[in-house]
Amino acid sequence: MEGHQSVAVVRIMGIDPGSRITGYGVIDLIGMKPRYVASGCIRTSDGALEQRLAQIYAGLGEVIGLYRPEAVAVERVFMAKNADSALKLGQARGAALVCLANHGLSISEYAARHIKQAVTGHGGAEKTQVQHMVTTLLQLTATPQADAADALAIALTHAFTGSGRVPPAAKQGKRRSTGRWRL
Amino acid sequence: MEGHQSVAVVRIMGIDPGSRITGYGVIDLIGMKPRYVASGCIRTSDGALEQRLAQIYAGLGEVIGLYRPEAVAVERVFMAKNADSALKLGQARGAALVCLANHGLSISEYAARHIKQAVTGHGGAEKTQVQHMVTTLLQLTATPQADAADALAIALTHAFTGSGRVPPAAKQGKRRSTGRWRL
Repeated sequence: MEGHQSVAVVRIMGIDPGSRITGYGVIDLIGMKPRYVASGCIRTSDGALEQRLAQIYAGLGEVIGLYRPEAVAVERVFMAKNADSALKLGQARGAALVCLANHGLSISEYAARHIKQAVTGHGGAEKTQVQHMVTTLLQLTATPQADAADALAIALTHAFTGSGRVPPAAKQGKRRSTGRWRL
Repeated sequence: MEGHQSVAVVRIMGIDPGSRITGYGVIDLIGMKPRYVASGCIRTSDGALEQRLAQIYAGLGEVIGLYRPEAVAVERVFMAKNADSALKLGQARGAALVCLANHGLSISEYAARHIKQAVTGHGGAEKTQVQHMVTTLLQLTATPQADAADALAIALTHAFTGSGRVPPAAKQGKRRSTGRWRL
């Protein structure tokens, strides 16, 4: 394939897990240029805890089946507001991450500051500024829902920080059978 | 079946999820008498977070497949020590609970105080006292590993507090196909 002119494409999914709303955002990185594919939210009902976690797991499984990302990125949690919210966030994260692992996906984590820096150029940027830049960078006609926008920002961070250009499976010297990494 | 003399048997699993060790304990409640079936631990390796969560999910799935519990109980978390440990515990809980839900199991939660009260008769009992009573009540020849003992205590609590005598599916007027509830 030496000298081949085709552009590498890698599909990246960002997720923003939460006990009530889990945002997801899927982009293609075509060469150096990100292209919007899809974004949305998985909302949980008022049922029992394990049923709500199963909704996150099933919903994310559907999204993975539909868009087949080869790289997944999630925000690193450094410090939650308090122990109670940390437990709730942790449970949602656990359900989401185990779903990704069960689909053979490995996950990159990025600190909130890193995400803001990558998307806006300023690590202390406001949330609305991040949403504005996501809309601009992906040439969207409307601002996505907040959690979906956060997920898109995480996917963009993975794309911009270089690791998005080589899917994890390729780095390990093997290619996943579902890989969309094209030369 | 009116007047039938057979004794109802319900199989109860208690679990004690943790980021490093997840304890499980399985008992049969035969009429009013608990009988030890199995207990043990699922230990996670030093790999990536999502891989460790997948080990909890897969390990618990194996235990469920092997012992086919019809009722599952877990300790309710009121307040974790701090936000960092709450997040770790939450992630492990999320992976464990979503596994149970994906196997069609509903979960009963019991407060730590309730578990101590049920097993030792004293809500402020020490951990070693709980382990001693688990060993005595189930007529074990040796004290189980700490997390397995905690899981057995949770299973015993579910058995002793009445709900263990009717599997959740039966309470809802339907029986799970895998149910071992016998008249």
